[in-house]
Amino acid sequence: MVKLVLIRHGESTANADNVYTGWNDVPLSAKGVEQAKQAGLKVQKIADFMPTHIHTSVLSRAIITANIVAEVCHFLYLPITKTWRLNERHYGALRGINKDVSRKVFGKEQVLEWRRSFDSVPPKLAQPVQDRRYQAYDMGLMPQGESLHQTQQRLMPYYWDNVAPKLAAGQDQLIVAHGSSLRALIKKLEHINNQDIVKVEVPNAQPIVYSFDKNLKIIKKQILK
Amino acid sequence: MVKLVLIRHGESTANADNVYTGWNDVPLSAKGVEQAKQAGLKVQKIADFMPTHIHTSVLSRAIITANIVAEVCHFLYLPITKTWRLNERHYGALRGINKDVSRKVFGKEQVLEWRRSFDSVPPKLAQPVQDRRYQAYDMGLMPQGESLHQTQQRLMPYYWDNVAPKLAAGQDQLIVAHGSSLRALIKKLEHINNQDIVKVEVPNAQPIVYSFDKNLKIIKKQILK
Repeated sequence: MVKLVLIRHGESTANADNVYTGWNDVPLSAKGVEQAKQAGLKVQKIADFMPTHIHTSVLSRAIITANIVAEVCHFLYLPITKTWRLNERHYGALRGINKDVSRKVFGKEQVLEWRRSFDSVPPKLAQPVQDRRYQAYDMGLMPQGESLHQTQQRLMPYYWDNVAPKLAAGQDQLIVAHGSSLRALIKKLEHINNQDIVKVEVPNAQPIVYSFDKNLKIIKKQILK
Repeated sequence: MVKLVLIRHGESTANADNVYTGWNDVPLSAKGVEQAKQAGLKVQKIADFMPTHIHTSVLSRAIITANIVAEVCHFLYLPITKTWRLNERHYGALRGINKDVSRKVFGKEQVLEWRRSFDSVPPKLAQPVQDRRYQAYDMGLMPQGESLHQTQQRLMPYYWDNVAPKLAAGQDQLIVAHGSSLRALIKKLEHINNQDIVKVEVPNAQPIVYSFDKNLKIIKKQILK
């Protein structure tokens, strides 16, 4: 039985401030660091879980969480891949804005629609994020704001090419990413429809353990609270 | 002018205890963590240094140092490769033994010979280190004790294949490794002879900055104390 473990990063300073973050690169809060350590202890106790690879985003809050988990679990030596495809959903012009403020500016209904609808795209930035970590890519590839659906579309190629084949070869894998990028992945893995995905929450630093059969069919899912 | 920066990990708990470590996987001491942060601040101040890749060993003290430096420098998103070829020199049967004790057991002259001669091999372990991080390799490849020369021989293929081509392409590189593995590399880079290498010390967490010309000839070396 091969296992895939998903972990959302520990609380970031932006989570603590109730601000839309997306591709902004914010650190973990002190609480988030502690949550990451606790997540590591939980991962360490998963029976027969010994990943061959760690996958994370290019955002510090996920990378730091992955490094803390790996250190606690004594597998810091594992190869780690950092990819923009596992980045958080890009919140476009909402990024950096307090969630309460956004409701006052754009209206409660509109914000709910942006946050909850699978296909709704938030107001876009005038241009993609200018940052060294994205400079190798065609700017047409880089989002200026994404729906959850668009997040899923840019994430899944990484999963199919770099995670699924390793699982199929019997190698456990660990993904450390973000609330909405993990929701997008979970939607695909569990075949959740566009309405029901609204109800799926991925709390900070609670490992989600999938056990797969040989055909990568899920036979068990466990959330380590 | 392309730059290569070498950093020896911060003080480990074994450094603090004056024990031969080699391939034993020991953590940083509290002082070592602080040294790593200071090293990060020094790297951040190197003019025009913006590496595209971080290279380190599969030993935690180097990986943790690399992660701390990367976090301080705000380039945690960089790809990092962890390879046994950058591991510390394998001290064979000396590993885990206090350096003072080793002099009493084997004699001062013999220990000096093992530590200082380029070709002297310490007493070997009965078998290679049994550890998951090395299990993919033919055991014949894995050392049971190494001279500095042997350390250099297994290290250089990684350097020529994975570091030098990037430097030649104009991309700055960062290597975080160990006292003797870095001595072995420095010996090659600077064409130091077998006698003079004895005098080369690589202190914990003091970045060594090489600037190269287009033909990878060293035009400047600076140690950031």
